[in-house]
Amino acid sequence: MQPSHIEHIGIAVKSLDAVIPYYEKMLGTKCYSIEEVPEQKVRTAFFKIGQTKIELLESTDPEGPIGKYIEKRGEGVQHIAFAVEGLQDQLNTLAEEGIQLIDKQPRKGAEGLNIAFLHPKSTFGVLTELCEDPNKK
Amino acid sequence: MQPSHIEHIGIAVKSLDAVIPYYEKMLGTKCYSIEEVPEQKVRTAFFKIGQTKIELLESTDPEGPIGKYIEKRGEGVQHIAFAVEGLQDQLNTLAEEGIQLIDKQPRKGAEGLNIAFLHPKSTFGVLTELCEDPNKK
Repeated sequence: MQPSHIEHIGIAVKSLDAVIPYYEKMLGTKCYSIEEVPEQKVRTAFFKIGQTKIELLESTDPEGPIGKYIEKRGEGVQHIAFAVEGLQDQLNTLAEEGIQLIDKQPRKGAEGLNIAFLHPKSTFGVLTELCEDPNKK
Repeated sequence: MQPSHIEHIGIAVKSLDAVIPYYEKMLGTKCYSIEEVPEQKVRTAFFKIGQTKIELLESTDPEGPIGKYIEKRGEGVQHIAFAVEGLQDQLNTLAEEGIQLIDKQPRKGAEGLNIAFLHPKSTFGVLTELCEDPNKK
């Protein structure tokens, strides 16, 4: 695989309202989008820094993945996402190599990207997302 | 503050030897540097992806920061580093704003950068590093 860049870093937070002002000051840029992703039971807030986005993730349901993450580990970096091309082919190759996939096929994520997650058991503890921009094909 | 990009993502691992082959395959690029940082009690391995580096961190001492991190939380993303200019001024401003600094003054980190850490208690759970390249001044 040869990702072009780190698409985003996903950070689990208890409250977008509490954390957005910190990142706006820290990054010297405004949050440019807030989006709810009902399938993931999250509200997301995005910032851009260089090639990469910071994606803050607030749970909308204690039983959702971010709710459970925060209960177990507290706030912090929850995943890293790499920008790739040919996502389905990449997933097939990774599966053949023994990497455990959370998503065997791409699904829709925030910002209209096609996304898939790899299981942290296979990636040395780092929940890893692969993203493909369907408009770049 | 207005960092130009994410300088690196620091990932705590139990064994560089075990994890380097995974990232070489995942990123489609070779580890370009292995460096020991005795003050931090770590051995580091670097990869480049776009503007950002992946820094794998292996503890050389169970009592060091990475040794303790892994004992408490397991392998995973340990910190994020932003590339900034005027690091000492940035630290002074952050301190005035009530951000808890681990390093009040920059010190030398891997790759000859001047670095300073912010305490995760002040940064919503994300251990945050600021890096300045002294050769860019």
